[in-house]
Amino acid sequence: MPVNLAAPARASLAAVSGVRIGVAMAGVRKANRKDLVVMVLDEGAAVAGVFTQNRFCAAPVQLCREHLAAQRGIRALLINTGNANAGTGADGVARARQTCAALARHLGLDEQQVLPFSTGVIMETLPVERIVAGLPAAVAALAPDRWLESAEGIMTTDTLPKAASRQVTIGGRTVTVTGIAKGAGMIRPNMATMLGFVATDAVIDPALMQTLVREAADQSFNRITIDGDTSTNDSFVLIATQRAGHAPITQLESADGAALREAVFAVSRQLAQAIVRDGEGATKFITVRVDGGRTKQECRLAAYAIAHSPLVKTAFFASDPNLGRILAAVGYAGIDDLDQGLIDLFLDDVHVVVRGGRHPAYQEADGQRVMKQSEITVRVDLHRGPAHATVWTCDLSHDYVSINADYRS
Amino acid sequence: MPVNLAAPARASLAAVSGVRIGVAMAGVRKANRKDLVVMVLDEGAAVAGVFTQNRFCAAPVQLCREHLAAQRGIRALLINTGNANAGTGADGVARARQTCAALARHLGLDEQQVLPFSTGVIMETLPVERIVAGLPAAVAALAPDRWLESAEGIMTTDTLPKAASRQVTIGGRTVTVTGIAKGAGMIRPNMATMLGFVATDAVIDPALMQTLVREAADQSFNRITIDGDTSTNDSFVLIATQRAGHAPITQLESADGAALREAVFAVSRQLAQAIVRDGEGATKFITVRVDGGRTKQECRLAAYAIAHSPLVKTAFFASDPNLGRILAAVGYAGIDDLDQGLIDLFLDDVHVVVRGGRHPAYQEADGQRVMKQSEITVRVDLHRGPAHATVWTCDLSHDYVSINADYRS
Repeated sequence: MPVNLAAPARASLAAVSGVRIGVAMAGVRKANRKDLVVMVLDEGAAVAGVFTQNRFCAAPVQLCREHLAAQRGIRALLINTGNANAGTGADGVARARQTCAALARHLGLDEQQVLPFSTGVIMETLPVERIVAGLPAAVAALAPDRWLESAEGIMTTDTLPKAASRQVTIGGRTVTVTGIAKGAGMIRPNMATMLGFVATDAVIDPALMQTLVREAADQSFNRITIDGDTSTNDSFVLIATQRAGHAPITQLESADGAALREAVFAVSRQLAQAIVRDGEGATKFITVRVDGGRTKQECRLAAYAIAHSPLVKTAFFASDPNLGRILAAVGYAGIDDLDQGLIDLFLDDVHVVVRGGRHPAYQEADGQRVMKQSEITVRVDLHRGPAHATVWTCDLSHDYVSINADYRS
Repeated sequence: MPVNLAAPARASLAAVSGVRIGVAMAGVRKANRKDLVVMVLDEGAAVAGVFTQNRFCAAPVQLCREHLAAQRGIRALLINTGNANAGTGADGVARARQTCAALARHLGLDEQQVLPFSTGVIMETLPVERIVAGLPAAVAALAPDRWLESAEGIMTTDTLPKAASRQVTIGGRTVTVTGIAKGAGMIRPNMATMLGFVATDAVIDPALMQTLVREAADQSFNRITIDGDTSTNDSFVLIATQRAGHAPITQLESADGAALREAVFAVSRQLAQAIVRDGEGATKFITVRVDGGRTKQECRLAAYAIAHSPLVKTAFFASDPNLGRILAAVGYAGIDDLDQGLIDLFLDDVHVVVRGGRHPAYQEADGQRVMKQSEITVRVDLHRGPAHATVWTCDLSHDYVSINADYRS
């Protein structure tokens, strides 16, 4: 059961001028489910992406990097679920290439103008023939208003489609930012998540795109974790179709640049949080904020230690204020010279720990009250510097075990 | 249900000359359970310990370090369950000191000659008065043959007591090594585990003890993980009572030193593996071996990434050969220049992955056969150097969630 998350309303998802989407059922792994998404971009779109840091990166991730580096102008994205095409060696790369070539033929493009994405089971052979056979239906369905279908078409163990949209005014023109993402498990993105796509019709210097996509990932997908497992296929792509008609954005620090950046961040953050809200077996949405670190990096170490601890996560699932587990996680996070005698811990507004020990006024009933909520903020103050960091996560429930014990059956 | 583990037979646990043990029910947290252990050492025993690297180390760990550093000659160990006395600030240290002083009075010792150990819930106030009230019964019960009772007396969520014993001949004399440990959850020892005690009557230069206890920890407790949560209270203590009557061991590299070392390692390893076999909710015992690394450190990174992955652990629970999850864990382990195209993966005798892709001869039925076993060896070969490392772990089951969601209730 997702935590305070509903399927997006179709009307809330604004089309992005210059982007058309087609979805089909290709039977990649199972019949009768939307598992193939084609996204076609008008000529002139700027595209940038960030990809998994997993050294066992999937074949499509390798091809995405190669095709972006070729700088032929990306014109299409091809996404399949049901098979991750990871752990498949050289054969997997060859198969991903065949699917790009097939879509390129349909659209009159070069195969290097197609970015491929796969998600699903690892170490299975990609059924190229099924994907190729599904392409005509996807291409025939191409239309600008298919964002909701595309969000459905990239789901695996997700229980709800994830999509978000914002509009801002830049240079007197309405600029749209719309995106989709999928997640659910093997989620501890490192650079990006298991498939996120955000498109805007903003007019922006393509040289700024890589910075913008990195910053957006860093504010969103790189701040979430469900199980600490960094996927082999994480990919986050930002598209700017340059169609909105305003004067080009040439600096992200300008007023227009800042407006676009905020809209891209907001959409990315909403998508990232939606992934956590729909995390496998999640019953609670947890914000972990660590203040008072010397560096952002050490704040992240502590925040991720809390967010990954199975003991902390099962305590949240049980609504049990067994909060010493949070202190233990901070203690083993890897901050070598940490002084436990300085640490404060808050659960929402409840001050639980002061100077490393239980706060004299802390009552278990207060902790219990917060732990029963479906949205909880854990705040730790290290009191050793000015840096802070935030991570979003969920609890660890029986359903997580069930889902991952049954995933392939 | 522990994995291929039974309670040790009383007769299998040889007494160690110079060590007497008394166990009592002090009602620290719950009534009618053995929760207080006193271990008294004859004068002249050499004692060394290694303790948690968790920066939120418990009050008793702080006192152990202080009392060992004082070099007054350790004569007694005082162990309670039901309360970890961690996350308790300066008050926790004062309370641990009061318990040491009380036992010292009973035995005519200085409080610095007592080492305190606590295990149980974090961030609760230590009930000193109950522990002090329980001491007379424990002291009255002191006897050399109470190793099994002491193993029972340090259990928390353990389902079985853990104890092991070996005898070796050194200089024509029988030398005994006997030890106890407890574990179950919050287990990813870093220097030592959540309470392990090994005693021998060997005659050994006290200057060698710290090296020996470190090496033993490194071969045993530091190679196991259940949930990746490094405890606040991990403590592993080695005692040599110097009573066996052989010529003193002055070098660990001598024949006598090697014989003692092997016996201490064997007892430590058996105790460490017993902790994994009785891991919270464990249904399988998994050995993860990584070969072919450039350094032992990178082999450990990969082995721990596999051993900590919730996705890998739930796949073991389900007996599902979803082995791509193992590749993904190796990929995110943090070996920056890893070449996935070199990697081999074996499940027991089954060659699953060759050069980063599925082995052509691999059949899912073969993977399935191994996954159904209760003891499984995962072997990864990185093919980039001569180093190797082994870690022992267990699977992640529904019972792990249940146990940790219910632990305090």
